[in-house]
Amino acid sequence: MKSQTASTPDTATGDLTRFLNPRGVAIVGASNDVNRIGGQPIRLLTEFGYAGKVYPVNPKYSEIRGLPCYPDVAAVPQPCDVALVALSAQHVRGVIEQCGRAGIPYALVLSAGFSEIGAEGKSLQHELVATARQAGVRLVGPNCLGILNLKDSARVGFGGTLQLTTLKPGPLAMVTQSGGFGFGVVAIACHYGLGFNYAISTGNEADLTLLDWMADLLERPEVEIVVAFMEGILDGRRMMEIGERALQLGKPILVWKVGNTDIGKRAATSHTARLTAGYELFRAAFRRGGYIEIRDVDDLIDVSKLLLAGKRPRGNRVAVLTLSGGAGVLLADRCIEHGLALPRLTGETTARLKTIMVSFASADNPVDATAHGYNDNFASYSRAIREVLADPNIDQAIARPPRGKSARPWAEGLLEVLRETDKPLVLNWPTAPDDNGDVMRYLEENGVPCIMAPGRAIAAMAAVTAFAQKCRAYRSAPPRAARRAAPRTELDLASDAGTLSELRSKQVLARYGIPVVRDALVREAEVAGLEASPIPFPVAVKVASADVPHKTEAGAVRLNIADLAALKQAAREVFAAARDYRNDARIDGVLVQEMASGLEVIVGAVDDPYFGPTVAFGLGGVYTELMKDVTHRFAPFDAITAREMIEEIRGAPLLRGYRGQPARDMEALADVLARVSNLISDHADRIAEIDINPLFVRAAGQGVLAADALIVLK
Amino acid sequence: MKSQTASTPDTATGDLTRFLNPRGVAIVGASNDVNRIGGQPIRLLTEFGYAGKVYPVNPKYSEIRGLPCYPDVAAVPQPCDVALVALSAQHVRGVIEQCGRAGIPYALVLSAGFSEIGAEGKSLQHELVATARQAGVRLVGPNCLGILNLKDSARVGFGGTLQLTTLKPGPLAMVTQSGGFGFGVVAIACHYGLGFNYAISTGNEADLTLLDWMADLLERPEVEIVVAFMEGILDGRRMMEIGERALQLGKPILVWKVGNTDIGKRAATSHTARLTAGYELFRAAFRRGGYIEIRDVDDLIDVSKLLLAGKRPRGNRVAVLTLSGGAGVLLADRCIEHGLALPRLTGETTARLKTIMVSFASADNPVDATAHGYNDNFASYSRAIREVLADPNIDQAIARPPRGKSARPWAEGLLEVLRETDKPLVLNWPTAPDDNGDVMRYLEENGVPCIMAPGRAIAAMAAVTAFAQKCRAYRSAPPRAARRAAPRTELDLASDAGTLSELRSKQVLARYGIPVVRDALVREAEVAGLEASPIPFPVAVKVASADVPHKTEAGAVRLNIADLAALKQAAREVFAAARDYRNDARIDGVLVQEMASGLEVIVGAVDDPYFGPTVAFGLGGVYTELMKDVTHRFAPFDAITAREMIEEIRGAPLLRGYRGQPARDMEALADVLARVSNLISDHADRIAEIDINPLFVRAAGQGVLAADALIVLK
Repeated sequence: MKSQTASTPDTATGDLTRFLNPRGVAIVGASNDVNRIGGQPIRLLTEFGYAGKVYPVNPKYSEIRGLPCYPDVAAVPQPCDVALVALSAQHVRGVIEQCGRAGIPYALVLSAGFSEIGAEGKSLQHELVATARQAGVRLVGPNCLGILNLKDSARVGFGGTLQLTTLKPGPLAMVTQSGGFGFGVVAIACHYGLGFNYAISTGNEADLTLLDWMADLLERPEVEIVVAFMEGILDGRRMMEIGERALQLGKPILVWKVGNTDIGKRAATSHTARLTAGYELFRAAFRRGGYIEIRDVDDLIDVSKLLLAGKRPRGNRVAVLTLSGGAGVLLADRCIEHGLALPRLTGETTARLKTIMVSFASADNPVDATAHGYNDNFASYSRAIREVLADPNIDQAIARPPRGKSARPWAEGLLEVLRETDKPLVLNWPTAPDDNGDVMRYLEENGVPCIMAPGRAIAAMAAVTAFAQKCRAYRSAPPRAARRAAPRTELDLASDAGTLSELRSKQVLARYGIPVVRDALVREAEVAGLEASPIPFPVAVKVASADVPHKTEAGAVRLNIADLAALKQAAREVFAAARDYRNDARIDGVLVQEMASGLEVIVGAVDDPYFGPTVAFGLGGVYTELMKDVTHRFAPFDAITAREMIEEIRGAPLLRGYRGQPARDMEALADVLARVSNLISDHADRIAEIDINPLFVRAAGQGVLAADALIVLK
Repeated sequence: MKSQTASTPDTATGDLTRFLNPRGVAIVGASNDVNRIGGQPIRLLTEFGYAGKVYPVNPKYSEIRGLPCYPDVAAVPQPCDVALVALSAQHVRGVIEQCGRAGIPYALVLSAGFSEIGAEGKSLQHELVATARQAGVRLVGPNCLGILNLKDSARVGFGGTLQLTTLKPGPLAMVTQSGGFGFGVVAIACHYGLGFNYAISTGNEADLTLLDWMADLLERPEVEIVVAFMEGILDGRRMMEIGERALQLGKPILVWKVGNTDIGKRAATSHTARLTAGYELFRAAFRRGGYIEIRDVDDLIDVSKLLLAGKRPRGNRVAVLTLSGGAGVLLADRCIEHGLALPRLTGETTARLKTIMVSFASADNPVDATAHGYNDNFASYSRAIREVLADPNIDQAIARPPRGKSARPWAEGLLEVLRETDKPLVLNWPTAPDDNGDVMRYLEENGVPCIMAPGRAIAAMAAVTAFAQKCRAYRSAPPRAARRAAPRTELDLASDAGTLSELRSKQVLARYGIPVVRDALVREAEVAGLEASPIPFPVAVKVASADVPHKTEAGAVRLNIADLAALKQAAREVFAAARDYRNDARIDGVLVQEMASGLEVIVGAVDDPYFGPTVAFGLGGVYTELMKDVTHRFAPFDAITAREMIEEIRGAPLLRGYRGQPARDMEALADVLARVSNLISDHADRIAEIDINPLFVRAAGQGVLAADALIVLK
């Protein structure tokens, strides 16, 4: 696993420029039928203005579409940077070998029939990868649609989208794990005015992956926005590094993640693993890095429009300006729902607005210029926008433009106003796109995004605001190495296996400085002869058995035991309940345990197969399980990050001291969260899951105490 | 307040047909300048094909645009059904008087300068209403944009939208409290293929309101979908009646409600009033009636497309069919997120799909026909859709069509398939609207809705599914009168006022058969001399003072008192704490109270100014206040509805018996909820708020017990 600090570009994949913009492309399996997979790419490369060379390869032909056709890859002239392979699956491997010998560094394998068709295809793909490694050839595909380079008119691939004349180059780049879907989205986005320099379909990702391309595209000056359609990735930490690089560059990655509801696949022993649905970790990683999560085509279009307009908001304080109150109310609603603030304007601004607008206009946020801002008074409305954007309480604004004859002169005046400010303005277009459509185009060409759907406009503003805030935070405090909360400590787990008992689990926690309740193991044979409690009363009595991980459900816990007779009775009941629950359970005895109290929280950790060690935190069972009030972080982290976790759950007021209850020891809680993060990341080779449930959080200054714990080894 | 059963159309407003489609319109304040508010309507009525008569009224002219101009309303020939008033505010009243004398039944007042400008305007509007009542003239406006009747080309009003030639008649009708915004939405929706027979701007609603028009439009055969842009209404119960009528007719009302985040305006004494944000009640009313809540222009367009396609889903079981796996995963995600089910297909269907599709296609839901469903194999893809729609496990389907040359013949085959089934199919259009645009139009004209954004397509399917389910439920079990849980009982509140004490509040609850804890009032002077507890130990001790409504925050509660000494000590502490909290508090004494236990829930009721008596239910404080896990119903209701409330909170598993805890007495809880609903609706003339917090819910069969209560009188 790489370091978490990615201060330099990711160069693991080398320079892929020649893959994107090859000097020559060999079409292996060339056909003179333009409808065939070996024919269409020749047409695409010859009809759209591609400046490189096209080399059809097929022993059956001497020429195709006026181009000389070569019998094999070896015969292709140099320089040839890419071999596009359109042969049936079993012939691909041989071609890759030839590419290696011929010095063709890149192969784009359109052919299907690999891992997507099952076991036989998987083995074929495995062999293909081995051959490519040996030959020194980097692959895209197999089973992909190819690479679309609109900047250089290199349409190297196959399929309906590549044939569209309506596609436009521009500062976006798309990389997609679903070629058909992702390329379709490119077509839609181009229709709505965006442009893409590149679009890459990664197919089965035998070699180059979505993450490789994301890292590559991010570094390119001709790419301002990377768009990734993501079904699944294997290396979550690398995704986070790329996200960090995006923040460093101030360049966003719009990520459209699918496959999020298929949870619960992994068999899970502890609570935590059940809580840690994969999608939550992805979202945590997106929030942390330079990602903007998008969930539909519209998000892509709206967010990109705002990003490309250039000005970045310095904060989340929005002013709303309209010509009718209803729209203002709606926009204000949506701002609040999306976490944007609508502060009051300063007295100075309000006073100036009152001199500009009619007396019954609303001169505070949301500003309603009323219909008097139309027609002859249109200039007053752009003056109002100027005053509002100049207000120190305001970071950005959204306005609804006037329509009709005054629209064009108003727009001209508006552009003057916007030249004076570095604060962004978005327009919520109030009518059909062909009503004053020339004005809309004029505004958009001059960097004023116009969005028709008011809710979408606000959602996009919120997304761009969050991205800008992350970039600012990164610049002002670049990532620091997390300070260790606990020293690395050896655990001596050599003789342990499977699920550790509660006693043993707490011993492990204690080694990392996590406070645990005092307890003593009493074997069944010892119960009758007990003359005193091994722990001062009041105590709890619980079964001690790795076979009964959920003791409460098994009825094998008794609390608040006040005297010896009750202790013996409780022990007998607990043994009986455990056997009742599972009659072959191996029972070590009962734990007699110090009664603890405080606010119950749960701290969990898992070594996630994709993201590595992660820590989850929430309030007790019902809150996490029914109310879904849980938060996640990637381990290791320090108390500063732990404190963020504590603050961001909905139940946080309970820890701060709620309705007469004392404030809790959040410092001690943050320390334990950080220690757990050290424990799981130091020992992820052995530890699969950690579950502290409950951890009692006492009043401020009085610490925390783990009352039960469970560690699952790999 | 009207009865809740609306089995007949609402006729309170009379027949408004002649308002929508007048035989003649008088333009009062006519101008020959088409840019002026008195000139533009003349152009609109003469240039768009309106078949009625147009009568300009202005003593200054003898003719305008070739039409004879009349000196006053009295001179206008009959029949004239509508007077459009375009005079300044102070002259409107006189015109309305004249209309009454001239037998013109309807006036549409465009003029601004009424309640929207403040106190002076409000008084002018008040006088206007009085005049109109006396004259027998019904009003739309003032301060509105008018009525747009595209069916009969009667554009009676003013503003940019009315001048657009791109507007289309059709089965939608819009009524809007924001004319500028709502008419703009009509323009956008027409651009995207919808048609509107009517659009009405209600302005200040001096007389006819949004609700009046919703009720009217719903009954019209030429209207299939009513769209309402709603800022605020006064009569929530009438809105619910209209919603019920919509279910009866099977005709949806698409409601776009704004002004939802401006909560907390009302000063509130009890918990419940603070919890009962107005928007939650609106949403509860929308869910209950034939409403579909929309939140953006896109929702309107997508949902309308699906509704107008005609076929209604019989349930929420969706099949997804794609030509690439990635899109299938995405659509499946969104279905689950929107509460739609993706059941497995029957073995028979899967077997048939396997004979139709290639071997590595996915023959279960989501069905992935793979790229082999394209091109020459397009017919196999429509056969697959046929099999899936015939599956008894499936109610509706969404598919992504092929593109390119096979799109048209595939679409033709698809229409054959759809003729055989009454299950709806939605297409998620996979590319730009102008790529195979002719095929998209062909499909949409033949009743197959095509939506480009996959998430929006699924959201619309979920909205239509919920509406269809409500209509089915209404037809199979039309609304019954709620069975009373408690008989109507007199309360003898004549001598009470303000906030009742806990003791008095519980007496009132007990009169309605709500179980309350036993308690006894002990005055301060009596404490020292107590020789036994008036209630058996263990007891709770609380301050008894209407001036200390939140006793726990005041520190004026002691629990689990076990003996007399502790009781006296607790009483002294509680008196001190209450005085500390508010030194002028009038203190009746302390309540010595039976200790109760069980699961804590909160039951609240308020007489809402808009919706009348409502009841709220949730788990204890943190769940309702921090986790927002609350539900609302309109009183009165019976135990069947109460049971629905209990089942729909997220914390419901706690009541059903969670993780080893016993199942709770949900029957007794439902009974209490219903009794509270009877109490508030029987006595809404006196009772403003009821708060039972906590109500302890014991194990099944053991009932519930109100441990604290607060009633606020009007």
